[in-house]
Amino acid sequence: MTHTVAGVRLGVAQAGIKRSDHDDLVVVALAEGTHTAAVFTQNAFRAAPVTIAEAHLSAVAAQPRYLLINTGNANAGTGEAGISAATACCEGLARLSEIEAEQVLPFSTGVIGELLSAEQIHAALPAALDDLCDKGWERAAGAILTTDTRAKLRSVEVELGGQRCTITGIAKGAGMICPNMATMLAFVATDAAIDAALLESLLKSAVSASFNRITVDGDTSTNDAVTLSATGQSGIEITAGSEHAEHFAQALTTLMIELAQDIVRDGEGASKFVEIRVTGGESEAACDQVARTVAHSPLVKTALFASDPNWGRILAAIGRAGLEDLDTDAVSIHLNGVLIAEQGARAASYTEEKGKEAMAPEDLLIEIALNRGDAGAVIWTTDLSYDYVRINAEYRT
Amino acid sequence: MTHTVAGVRLGVAQAGIKRSDHDDLVVVALAEGTHTAAVFTQNAFRAAPVTIAEAHLSAVAAQPRYLLINTGNANAGTGEAGISAATACCEGLARLSEIEAEQVLPFSTGVIGELLSAEQIHAALPAALDDLCDKGWERAAGAILTTDTRAKLRSVEVELGGQRCTITGIAKGAGMICPNMATMLAFVATDAAIDAALLESLLKSAVSASFNRITVDGDTSTNDAVTLSATGQSGIEITAGSEHAEHFAQALTTLMIELAQDIVRDGEGASKFVEIRVTGGESEAACDQVARTVAHSPLVKTALFASDPNWGRILAAIGRAGLEDLDTDAVSIHLNGVLIAEQGARAASYTEEKGKEAMAPEDLLIEIALNRGDAGAVIWTTDLSYDYVRINAEYRT
Repeated sequence: MTHTVAGVRLGVAQAGIKRSDHDDLVVVALAEGTHTAAVFTQNAFRAAPVTIAEAHLSAVAAQPRYLLINTGNANAGTGEAGISAATACCEGLARLSEIEAEQVLPFSTGVIGELLSAEQIHAALPAALDDLCDKGWERAAGAILTTDTRAKLRSVEVELGGQRCTITGIAKGAGMICPNMATMLAFVATDAAIDAALLESLLKSAVSASFNRITVDGDTSTNDAVTLSATGQSGIEITAGSEHAEHFAQALTTLMIELAQDIVRDGEGASKFVEIRVTGGESEAACDQVARTVAHSPLVKTALFASDPNWGRILAAIGRAGLEDLDTDAVSIHLNGVLIAEQGARAASYTEEKGKEAMAPEDLLIEIALNRGDAGAVIWTTDLSYDYVRINAEYRT
Repeated sequence: MTHTVAGVRLGVAQAGIKRSDHDDLVVVALAEGTHTAAVFTQNAFRAAPVTIAEAHLSAVAAQPRYLLINTGNANAGTGEAGISAATACCEGLARLSEIEAEQVLPFSTGVIGELLSAEQIHAALPAALDDLCDKGWERAAGAILTTDTRAKLRSVEVELGGQRCTITGIAKGAGMICPNMATMLAFVATDAAIDAALLESLLKSAVSASFNRITVDGDTSTNDAVTLSATGQSGIEITAGSEHAEHFAQALTTLMIELAQDIVRDGEGASKFVEIRVTGGESEAACDQVARTVAHSPLVKTALFASDPNWGRILAAIGRAGLEDLDTDAVSIHLNGVLIAEQGARAASYTEEKGKEAMAPEDLLIEIALNRGDAGAVIWTTDLSYDYVRINAEYRT
């Protein structure tokens, strides 16, 4: 069930940027007094809207009034002309809404390297504004998709001291997924009242436990962005260090993990949802490195696609992950609970039959115990299928 | 034309380790007085034969008498039992040849994680020894293949001060190719006389310019090894620092680059041979990092498969390669000589037509100019095709 967020209205329209008949423009209107925090891609080639959104957010002291999102064109790799186009889009919405252009944060997703037409956006803006409604979450979730096959929407009601506030969020993304301090596009809002500093800290902490834990293909996008808006209209105030803040942070993190996992489950060509859990490392960074090396190995990913318990490929990926003085005899690997390798070799108790059974489900858990420390890390990823190649070989044709 | 190498004889046999009717055992006999240098995989999970070969090479002060190579089973991820099997294989050959087991270097390639049967090797050794012949290079090149579709054999005659010596080498490898200080299996020999220290330095330098410059899928094997043997039987002596050494090093490096590129051209599912040349970086390591990030990007690789000039994906890969303070406006990209991107955007002179034409050939050159220093690096790689997925999803079934 989708809970509306008091103070947030969403409207969609067809701007004709996606070639097919498909909503491709979303306007999110935020009530006055709403605080918004955002994290953006760490890719050095940042799309024009990322640059503008960050500048605008800072210019209005975390109180933008609109998020303006288009799909079909990422407005990335477009140089100065791209910056002008992103600015012009914001100016168009500002004129119609009688606000300043800096109060609009622009977001784009789609093909890289083609100029975005601000005129097409301008022409569709009146329809999107007419469509604004607090029940617009589902349609907005559909309108921001690119190669995604499913909308990603999560919503929760949080009880804090007898009162209730809501958190609702949407996300998109299926390829070029390896967020680094940010992700593909996700927009989350709550009607709790949260000041800008706390909001930013809540967002960063939830993102690092959710969107920064997923990878489809290791390719970090130029356009990744996640926003969190707090309208305050529920009357519930959340202050730093309070019990409410802790409770809220848990609910927010859970919701973001669900959205992040939705992205992985809809990963391009994905037939498996794979959790890679590394334990016993000397640091979280070392465990993360092992988990990502396994997650990005094309040989591991194709074996997952084939439901082949080819643990030798997992072992080879661990071995090249760059850990110093790795004692390979100490490493053990479980596949969906079945011990498959230990002491640098196949486990004595393992049989091919057990392995095949363990690999059959759509959801797979790969547990890697390094046995050299107390730290751990988890990564969620997909397999590598024919369809991944098809989707990405055909994307522009 | 294949030049024999005086002092080197090769023999092959069917040990039944590969399931099909296929030669899968090679014995290389080296004349007394031959020096051999070798480099091995840096993967922490090293296969048993790698461990044994390195120990034996050191025990006999770089003068082994036999290389013993099997395909079909990598004897990797096999723990103590694997070490015993590799040792037993060497002992079998030593008994038949009346030498010490330490004078044999074992090499294995094939499936990871299954125990190698020393008995099968023992049973086939007499046939392989009967087959020994200085013209055995072609058959040996065929017998070491796994998923390779073509044998890789290169041979050259080098004139040094009016005399001639030969260098001949064979290699195998098509998947799990991302050598790190070594490669898949390659065996090179010369009839020049070269002492062990110079031989090692010649090998390391040639490997770093050849096998360490290639990647198919970013997966570093557990079994990579390259050897270089010098029999001295041509009567030509090569000493460190001499003009001959320089001349010889050039010829050796060229031959190893040819073998390395043969591996890429035969990369699993490869339909393109791609050279990625990064210039203008602050260091070779930085350029290498950019080239490898582009080479490993599944999105770039699928675009290459589609012959799609999707330079936005190249740009996104450069942007996530981890260079500090990258000035994206200074970066330019050429595709087979066509300028496609500069100043963070599509080049003004670029048209889709030009891009499509540039991408059509099987051989592609991607030139990335960072314009922030004087260093450069080159990487050779392949595209990512349906066949890569098919080959690796079906490998064990």
